[in-house]
Amino acid sequence: MGLLPGRHFFICTTIMGDEGALEGNLLVAQSGGPTVVINATLAGVVQEALNHPCIEEIYGAAYGLRGMLSGSFIDLAQESQHVIRGLRHTPGAALGSCRYRFQEADLAALFDVLQSRNIRYFIYIGGNGSQHIVRLVSDHAKKIGYGMRAIGVPKTIDNDLVVTDHSPGYGSVVKYVATTAREIAIDDQSMGDYDLVSIVEVMGRDSGWIAAGSVLARHMGTPFDAPHLIYIPERPFRDSEFLASVQRILESNRYCLVVVSEGIRNEAGDYVRTSGIKDPLGRTELGGAAEHLQSLVEQYLKIKSRTTKLGISQRSAAHCSSQRDNDEAHQCGVRAARGAVNGESGKMVTIVREGDSPYCVSYGFTPLEDVAGKVKEFPAAWIDESGSMISSNFFRYVAPLIQGEVNVPFKGGVPEYVLLDGAKKAEENLFRRKSEIR
Amino acid sequence: MGLLPGRHFFICTTIMGDEGALEGNLLVAQSGGPTVVINATLAGVVQEALNHPCIEEIYGAAYGLRGMLSGSFIDLAQESQHVIRGLRHTPGAALGSCRYRFQEADLAALFDVLQSRNIRYFIYIGGNGSQHIVRLVSDHAKKIGYGMRAIGVPKTIDNDLVVTDHSPGYGSVVKYVATTAREIAIDDQSMGDYDLVSIVEVMGRDSGWIAAGSVLARHMGTPFDAPHLIYIPERPFRDSEFLASVQRILESNRYCLVVVSEGIRNEAGDYVRTSGIKDPLGRTELGGAAEHLQSLVEQYLKIKSRTTKLGISQRSAAHCSSQRDNDEAHQCGVRAARGAVNGESGKMVTIVREGDSPYCVSYGFTPLEDVAGKVKEFPAAWIDESGSMISSNFFRYVAPLIQGEVNVPFKGGVPEYVLLDGAKKAEENLFRRKSEIR
Repeated sequence: MGLLPGRHFFICTTIMGDEGALEGNLLVAQSGGPTVVINATLAGVVQEALNHPCIEEIYGAAYGLRGMLSGSFIDLAQESQHVIRGLRHTPGAALGSCRYRFQEADLAALFDVLQSRNIRYFIYIGGNGSQHIVRLVSDHAKKIGYGMRAIGVPKTIDNDLVVTDHSPGYGSVVKYVATTAREIAIDDQSMGDYDLVSIVEVMGRDSGWIAAGSVLARHMGTPFDAPHLIYIPERPFRDSEFLASVQRILESNRYCLVVVSEGIRNEAGDYVRTSGIKDPLGRTELGGAAEHLQSLVEQYLKIKSRTTKLGISQRSAAHCSSQRDNDEAHQCGVRAARGAVNGESGKMVTIVREGDSPYCVSYGFTPLEDVAGKVKEFPAAWIDESGSMISSNFFRYVAPLIQGEVNVPFKGGVPEYVLLDGAKKAEENLFRRKSEIR
Repeated sequence: MGLLPGRHFFICTTIMGDEGALEGNLLVAQSGGPTVVINATLAGVVQEALNHPCIEEIYGAAYGLRGMLSGSFIDLAQESQHVIRGLRHTPGAALGSCRYRFQEADLAALFDVLQSRNIRYFIYIGGNGSQHIVRLVSDHAKKIGYGMRAIGVPKTIDNDLVVTDHSPGYGSVVKYVATTAREIAIDDQSMGDYDLVSIVEVMGRDSGWIAAGSVLARHMGTPFDAPHLIYIPERPFRDSEFLASVQRILESNRYCLVVVSEGIRNEAGDYVRTSGIKDPLGRTELGGAAEHLQSLVEQYLKIKSRTTKLGISQRSAAHCSSQRDNDEAHQCGVRAARGAVNGESGKMVTIVREGDSPYCVSYGFTPLEDVAGKVKEFPAAWIDESGSMISSNFFRYVAPLIQGEVNVPFKGGVPEYVLLDGAKKAEENLFRRKSEIR
C-alpha cells in the first residue's frame, strides 16, 4: 500500500486503465489567430497524451486545415523535451495555423486522411468558428461509423466563446494591454506642457472585451488613474459625445488617456474608419479607429493628441503574459486529451469559475452545439451609464485572469522561443518557394 | 588598517573630504521626453548626493523648466527609501518634464530662483537641446560670478548625443522594439494562408538608431530571421524600391516584416506622410509612415498588410527594459553628483566603451560645447548597400546595450510604479484646475 492509496490507484487507472479507450493515433491542430498561450495548450495535449498507452502516435497538423486536408503531419513524440517545454512560453502557433474557410464538402477528403492515418483522437484548439468545424467532424465520424473522438479546446484573445467562464489567451492580452496603458499614462502624466490626449487602439472587431480589460491599468487615487475613457463596439460611438467627454476629463486632469477597440461603429452601425480592403475570409480590414479619434481632437479641440496601435504585438507579447492564463491553457490541453481517452467526444473543454476569493476554477465539457458559432457579448451591465467606462463588477471578473508573470527565458537580451523541428520540414513540403515554381 | 586600505581611504575622501566642494543645495531636473531609465539617473543623483555633507538640500525641479523658473521644487531628501528605490524601475519622468523653449532672456529669472534657494549644484538630465541649456546656465553663472556647478547627464531614446558612446534610454527602447519585432515575426510565421507584410512603425524623427536596433530581433537561420527590411530617415525612401524589396523577400518567405522609422523621407526630403499639425516646439507632427507603406503594399502588390505603431509604449515599457541600460543610467547620475562635488562644471557625463568582449565601460566628462545642439548621425557604414538592412558591425555595437532584464515588481498582475510624494504637491501648485480658474 502506498502513502496515498486512493490517489495512487487513481493515477494507475488513468495511465494504465483507460477503460473504453480507443487504440490509435491522436491529431492536434491549431486554428485562427494565435494567442500567447495556444502553444501552452498544445504542450498540455502532448504531455497528457504521452501518459496513455492507447494513444500510439501523437501528430500535429501543420498549418491547421491545410495540414489536415493534405496529411501534412508533424510527429510530436519526436520533438525534444526542451522544445515541448519551450512551447509553454512561445507565442505564435507552433504547428502553424490558417484561416481557411472549411466547408462540408471538405469532409470526405479530411476523413480520407484521418482514416488512412488511423486518427482516433482529434483535438482542435480554436475559437467559435473552429468549434463549428469540430462539430462537423464529430458528427461526420458518427454518421459514417468511424470510431473517433473529437474535442475542441477554447482559444481566443477576444474572450467571445460562450459557456466557458473565459477563454485561454484573453488573460494575457489584457495583462499586456493594461501594463502598456499604465506605462503610457505615467509618460503622459510626466509631461507638463499642455493638455494631451493619448489614444491607444486595441484589437476587438466585434466586442470590447480587450479594450474593457485596460481598466486594470487604473491606479485609483493617483494621477495614473487612467484610462479615462474606454470605447467598445457594443456602444455606438458618437463624435460629439467623445469630444465632450475629453473636455470634461481635461477640466481636472492634464492628460486624457483613451483606449478604443479597432471595431467601434457609429450610430448607423458602420466602422468609424476602415481601409476598405477585405481579408481572406471576406471581412473588412479594420484600422484607423485611433486616427479617427485623433483627428477629432486635433480638429475640434486643437489639442495635441498621439496614438499607439498595439496591433499584432497584443496577441504575441509572451514576454508580458499571465501565468494564470498560461496554466489554465495548459490544463485545458491536458483535460482535452484525458477526456478524449475517457470517452468524451463532440464537446469543448470549459473553464468553470468556482469562486472569486480565493479565485478557483474547475474544468468541464460542454456539447459543441452549445458553443459553435455563438458569440459571448460583453455584458451591458458592465458598461457604465456614460458608455465610456467599465464598471467595477467587470473588474472583479477580469482581475484574477492576469495574475502571475510568465518567466520567459531571455538569451542575448531578447526572448528565446522554440520552433518545432517537424514544423520546419512540414513548411518545406507545404509551401513550395515561388522561385522554384517558376 | 582595513582589508582594502586604498579603497577605504578613497571612500573616506569622497564622502568626508569633498575638497574644493561648495556648501549649498543641489537641484536636479528632467527634460524632454522621458525614457524608462531617466528615473534611474535621478535615483543615482539622489543616492550619491546623500553621501556628501557639503550638499545640504536635494531639490528636484517640478516639470523641468517650469519648476526651475517658478521655484517649484520637490524636497527629495524627504522621499522615502521605498520611493527612491522604486524610481529605478519606474517609467515617465518622476519629477515631471516639459518641452519649454528656453531662451537667454529667461536666465535672469532662473538665476533669481537659483540664488535665492542657494543652489550650488545643478544637474540636468536631458538630450542635446537640454545640454545647450546647461551650457547657458553654466556660462551665465561664471559671467555673474555666482559659484555654482552645472552638469548635464545624457538621456535620449534616440541615441543622437555625440561624444558619449551611447545614451541612457537607448538600450531599453531597442530591447523592447527587438522583443516585439521577434514576437510579431513568430505570429506572422505561424499563419499559413497567404503572403503577409507586417509593418512596425517606431520612433525616430531624424535618425534611424531605434529602427536599426530592431535588427537584434533576427534569429539567424530560422524562419524568424526577421525583420527583413529596415527603413531609416538617413536614406531616402523610394516607393518603387520598397515594393521591389518586398516582392524579393516574398519569393523565399511567406511573410515580410518591415520596421520603419516614423521620420522616413522621400528623395525631396519631405516626410512620406504627416498629420500636418505642429507640436509645441513648432515641429511637424509625424505619424503615418506605416500607413504609407501599407497602402503601397495593398494598392500595388494586392497583398495583405498589417501595421503596428508602438508609439509612446516604446519609451515607457519599463516592464521590458535593459538592466545594463538601467545600471548605466544610474551610474551616470552618481557620476554627475560626485563630479560636481569634485569640481566638474560645464560638462556632460559620458559613457566610454572600453571593450566589446567582455563589454566594459568607464565614465567621463566632456565640455558642453562639444555636445550641445549637436547630433550623432547613424553611421553610413552601418547601412548595407541595399539601404534597407543594417550591417553586422552595428550589431556588435548595439547588442551589449540590451543585456539583462530589469525585474519590475508586479502587484495585482500589473507593474507597480512609484510616484514622488513631492510631485503630487508640486502638481497641485503648478497646475491650477481649469474648473477653478473659471
